[in-house]
Amino acid sequence: MTEYAKPMARVIDELKRLPGVGSKSAQRIAFHLLKMEDADAERLANAIRELKQSICLCDICHNVTETSPCGYCTDGSRDSKLLCVVEDPAGIVPIEKTGHYRGRYHVLHGVLSPLQGIGPEQLRIESLLARVREGGVQEVIVATNPTVEGESTAVYLAKILKPLGTSVTRIAMGV
Amino acid sequence: MTEYAKPMARVIDELKRLPGVGSKSAQRIAFHLLKMEDADAERLANAIRELKQSICLCDICHNVTETSPCGYCTDGSRDSKLLCVVEDPAGIVPIEKTGHYRGRYHVLHGVLSPLQGIGPEQLRIESLLARVREGGVQEVIVATNPTVEGESTAVYLAKILKPLGTSVTRIAMGV
Repeated sequence: MTEYAKPMARVIDELKRLPGVGSKSAQRIAFHLLKMEDADAERLANAIRELKQSICLCDICHNVTETSPCGYCTDGSRDSKLLCVVEDPAGIVPIEKTGHYRGRYHVLHGVLSPLQGIGPEQLRIESLLARVREGGVQEVIVATNPTVEGESTAVYLAKILKPLGTSVTRIAMGV
Repeated sequence: MTEYAKPMARVIDELKRLPGVGSKSAQRIAFHLLKMEDADAERLANAIRELKQSICLCDICHNVTETSPCGYCTDGSRDSKLLCVVEDPAGIVPIEKTGHYRGRYHVLHGVLSPLQGIGPEQLRIESLLARVREGGVQEVIVATNPTVEGESTAVYLAKILKPLGTSVTRIAMGV
């Protein structure tokens, strides 16, 4: 017979696909799910389903949102002269947490990575150029991660954005 | 505005309740779910739901199973004179993996822990005694974990099982 009952093996297999969840963690989580109240497990399953059903990308900044345009893009109190470029939606959170940035965002959904076949056309760069060309953006702050790909993406963005007459800065790193 | 869209915050909250999943991992998993194909996320949600719906406890050994009695209890090729007592269903897997044990199992669903208010009546000890009393069991191998609670549970079991005429051994530990 197999080691685990089929529904158990299936949940372990699915959990193992998640980032940072190895074989042991998947087993531990699966047994935890078994012991959980039915209602709690149901809530998790529903939350996952709902996430996929109700979240879309903002048409303007490409952040994840329930309604497009997103809250950042529609918030009239934000400074539309400032645009912060992040790699992915998760990049917005730490910047918001500082409480010091009151501009708008633009999510690239990745960084340039020739080795992985990711060029400018795979990223949301065309719409970034369009936003800057429309006028009103005085400064673009590139907040890609301090990785090789993040840095080269920043250099590339500076090269194509500066001719449009906007200032391009890199977000401050470290202490 | 809140840091994350509501469905995102909800999934992060639910994920954080899982063992070994902290705030950062929950965020990483949630963003991974967002990027996943709808069908893959759906499969995970369904696997969780199905786990709760289709898994029950075996009436004989209290292992988790799709059908009661479970595969170990119905497997005629297993030696019913041998009974291995484990703390929880997860404890069966490593023993099966050795490939050397061909007896049956009994799952306690916990260990004695007076500090947490877990006494013999909270565990599946009554049904263990009943199985031994029915006769046929010549050796009970206690495979509780080598923790203080696991050891004292083993001592307790030896004390109540030996008068029933069965031999009680502790599983070998270490090298």
